[in-house]
Amino acid sequence: MAEISTKPYLIRALYEWCADAGFTPQLLVAVDGRTRVPPGFVKDGQIVLNISAGATRNLTLDNDWIQFSSRFGGILVVKNSNRSPTVQRVHSDRNLSPITGGTSSPTSPARFSL
Amino acid sequence: MAEISTKPYLIRALYEWCADAGFTPQLLVAVDGRTRVPPGFVKDGQIVLNISAGATRNLTLDNDWIQFSSRFGGILVVKNSNRSPTVQRVHSDRNLSPITGGTSSPTSPARFSL
Repeated sequence: MAEISTKPYLIRALYEWCADAGFTPQLLVAVDGRTRVPPGFVKDGQIVLNISAGATRNLTLDNDWIQFSSRFGGILVVKNSNRSPTVQRVHSDRNLSPITGGTSSPTSPARFSL
Repeated sequence: MAEISTKPYLIRALYEWCADAGFTPQLLVAVDGRTRVPPGFVKDGQIVLNISAGATRNLTLDNDWIQFSSRFGGILVVKNSNRSPTVQRVHSDRNLSPITGGTSSPTSPARFSL
């Protein structure tokens, strides 16, 4: 049996926690040749992706790939197999800010290292 | 909104990882007045619980309580609301040994701190 990384399991866990706790789940992803994201949003070789239910469509968080459709600067980027960060390139599943608009959201952001 | 602990989310994630990776999920639980386990298996105020699918019945891993039926020294202990470790008392979700009997199980144990 090939060794299985705990990382995708932890990403899914923290994604669910963010949803239940009222935080916005954001991924810090290192961009390389296998990471398909709009290049204009890459900074210092990294991109922050908001993967909340309100910001994405058709999100899948499986053991090898993270895929979703989303808008970048108003432009819809459609999920496909060539436009996805690999799970290995996720540096952290972090919360940068509480979900806005709620009256009972937590006020302090959380950050995790994976 | 009350603050929600990440711990139960991480316990569920590592439980699923152990199942997929061929490890035996074991919990190290600090025993106190709210923790209902057979006292003969408590050592230094702690108990190690094997929560694998093969060792438990009716396992539930929710945000506040972990409950299941299991055998301790051949004695069946039936799950009920007064016989469960609270999630707050879980010190670690650790793997102590690979599942025996398999030919393709990982050989090195894993350990996690929560």
